[in-house]
Amino acid sequence: MKKVTVHRKAHFNAAHRLYVKEWSFEKNQSVFGKCNNPYYHGHNYEIVVSVTGEIDPQTGYLIDMKILKDIIKEEIEDAFDHKNLNEQVPEFKNINPTAENIVVVSWEKIRKRLDEALELEVTLYETPRNFVTYKGN
Amino acid sequence: MKKVTVHRKAHFNAAHRLYVKEWSFEKNQSVFGKCNNPYYHGHNYEIVVSVTGEIDPQTGYLIDMKILKDIIKEEIEDAFDHKNLNEQVPEFKNINPTAENIVVVSWEKIRKRLDEALELEVTLYETPRNFVTYKGN
Amino acid sequence: MKKVTVHRKAHFNAAHRLYVKEWSFEKNQSVFGKCNNPYYHGHNYEIVVSVTGEIDPQTGYLIDMKILKDIIKEEIEDAFDHKNLNEQVPEFKNINPTAENIVVVSWEKIRKRLDEALELEVTLYETPRNFVTYKGN
Amino acid sequence: MKKVTVHRKAHFNAAHRLYVKEWSFEKNQSVFGKCNNPYYHGHNYEIVVSVTGEIDPQTGYLIDMKILKDIIKEEIEDAFDHKNLNEQVPEFKNINPTAENIVVVSWEKIRKRLDEALELEVTLYETPRNFVTYKGN
Amino acid sequence: MKKVTVHRKAHFNAAHRLYVKEWSFEKNQSVFGKCNNPYYHGHNYEIVVSVTGEIDPQTGYLIDMKILKDIIKEEIEDAFDHKNLNEQVPEFKNINPTAENIVVVSWEKIRKRLDEALELEVTLYETPRNFVTYKGN
Amino acid sequence: MKKVTVHRKAHFNAAHRLYVKEWSFEKNQSVFGKCNNPYYHGHNYEIVVSVTGEIDPQTGYLIDMKILKDIIKEEIEDAFDHKNLNEQVPEFKNINPTAENIVVVSWEKIRKRLDEALELEVTLYETPRNFVTYKGN
Repeated sequence: MKKVTVHRKAHFNAAHRLYVKEWSFEKNQSVFGKCNNPYYHGHNYEIVVSVTGEIDPQTGYLIDMKILKDIIKEEIEDAFDHKNLNEQVPEFKNINPTAENIVVVSWEKIRKRLDEALELEVTLYETPRNFVTYKGN
Repeated sequence: MKKVTVHRKAHFNAAHRLYVKEWSFEKNQSVFGKCNNPYYHGHNYEIVVSVTGEIDPQTGYLIDMKILKDIIKEEIEDAFDHKNLNEQVPEFKNINPTAENIVVVSWEKIRKRLDEALELEVTLYETPRNFVTYKGN
Repeated sequence: MKKVTVHRKAHFNAAHRLYVKEWSFEKNQSVFGKCNNPYYHGHNYEIVVSVTGEIDPQTGYLIDMKILKDIIKEEIEDAFDHKNLNEQVPEFKNINPTAENIVVVSWEKIRKRLDEALELEVTLYETPRNFVTYKGN
Repeated sequence: MKKVTVHRKAHFNAAHRLYVKEWSFEKNQSVFGKCNNPYYHGHNYEIVVSVTGEIDPQTGYLIDMKILKDIIKEEIEDAFDHKNLNEQVPEFKNINPTAENIVVVSWEKIRKRLDEALELEVTLYETPRNFVTYKGN
Repeated sequence: MKKVTVHRKAHFNAAHRLYVKEWSFEKNQSVFGKCNNPYYHGHNYEIVVSVTGEIDPQTGYLIDMKILKDIIKEEIEDAFDHKNLNEQVPEFKNINPTAENIVVVSWEKIRKRLDEALELEVTLYETPRNFVTYKGN
Repeated sequence: MKKVTVHRKAHFNAAHRLYVKEWSFEKNQSVFGKCNNPYYHGHNYEIVVSVTGEIDPQTGYLIDMKILKDIIKEEIEDAFDHKNLNEQVPEFKNINPTAENIVVVSWEKIRKRLDEALELEVTLYETPRNFVTYKGN
């Protein structure tokens, strides 16, 4: 059986603030700089979802792209797009919405929607110059 | 004299909310949809500043790129980057920070720093799919 | 009144063949080369629709992007996406689907859906290296 | 010895139709949707060929790029460019030209042209949003 | 007759140094900074050649892309690619190879190869962030 | 502990010539072709630095991007940007500045600045079509 990786790209726009709630403003400022702006700033995030498994010998598909596209829409776009990550996304109630944490949360949300036989890796672009990859611990 | 246009690209990340203060939440929702989110959302804005004029026959420069780069840094990046446009940028106190209004404000800020002999056009990318151009009415 | 240009990008995938029906296969081959393949070839087309007009002083919009997006969807994406341009798009029944003719047809379809006060320019990318612009002769 | 991976990007434009010959039109339509269009549609495919091995300590090359470029031209571009994959490429006579199958066929064609000491991975972009990677079973 | 603009993109890699021969090293350093490095530095230049004219009603072509591609190859790629612009390109013997001067020289070389009825504009990217446009004074 | 990879992109412009000092001009010409130009040519290099390790559970950072950005600036940009790699960068005094060797040198310079617990991979783009990856054999 041929094992391939299928990648699907999507995007969402969101606001966030990086800070540790237990720290003083000064300490947050020294660690997070202008990302600690209490009025928030934002990004056009891009996400690449990469699924690895065996090709179905009849259809030639690893996974129906429409199904993968719908999972990304429901788990990522509907949940994060045009949202304030700190204030409106429950997963970031108690964790800082850094690119690292967003990619882990995204991976976990998509993982539970996929067949166990499939491997998953997610890459999140915060800007074209800063991006993060997670494949499950 | 050869007349050329020199373009310089820069970028900034910001949060904003689109709404008309005088309108009800419902009316804003029907016009601005999810851009009316009161908790804000954000973008990686890209800006292209295009300056037209004659080439200096000795240096071969229209304008020293370091000077243009500094003007863009002072007028656009320092003013907008990692800011909430509605709450922290005085120019948007009373006007809605749509891409159309951001490009006009950007053009006016850069215009007053340039020699009168130079023409100016500014393009602002809100996302790779939505962008706006202004060249002064 | 401030006059700006708002640009919106979309894309569609299609097959086509370039040839003049009245010509012999040999003459078509000498003019259109491998684009004359009778079994067709195809492209990921990208289209940028650029609308110029005055900003509404209250909303800060030139045109509601959702409306422009819907026009592009109905006139371009629904009509051309995943189609064979020669065989399945009536506008190309009797004209050769070159990039030049596709951009003119696209312009005409969008033009008749827009307010007369707005100016229109359309750019069509056949590949990232070949593209065409039309603004209505 | 230093082991590096050298990547080379190329592109080709082709038409295809996705369907299983043994299935009814209705079944194909339900699985492949508009990709089942019997008149074909097409793409600007991009391919990234990644070769891993040791750097030659004298030349500083892993592989002469001109040689790799020629292999890609002969095996991929000459074979697929401006072709109808279903009708004109023998490898897809009996298998469905999905991105998954195209990347496997491309890998196999390039693999047999490379020194056995080199590892090979191929990524095929069907669109900027859909792409597939294969590294040999 | 429909008037369209056809754009073709190409690229070349070259070395250059920016300086005025009549000036002292110090004066050149103060004006051109690290671009004045006497050992040269270099760029991946991208060039977009834009030709405007009427569509041939029979072929649907403004200009045969193969012809335009060949003109760009002969006038730009063969002349500039993998060259030191200051030392090996006669046009820059006595003028500084700034992006402004390269775009003017490119325009002049292509202009004399085109039918007089066609208009010409050339854009030269020195980097993705710095680019210059010329359409003939 | 969640293990992620953080990527940071930077760029520099440089000149180089590819040749083996011990070889005749003719032999170098036959191996390196126009890259052997004794007057040099150049590129806009892009570099992606990828660091793998565990997320700090309090900050949500793998590594402070400002620190990584400064390391890249000091080790790569300050050392290579606007330089002639053969003549002005000591690491290439005796090794040929091929993309393969540049990526290995870059990896070694960054490696010694990072905490031992972090893994490192570097990708160097010589052009958008030719790039090389190294993760320390």
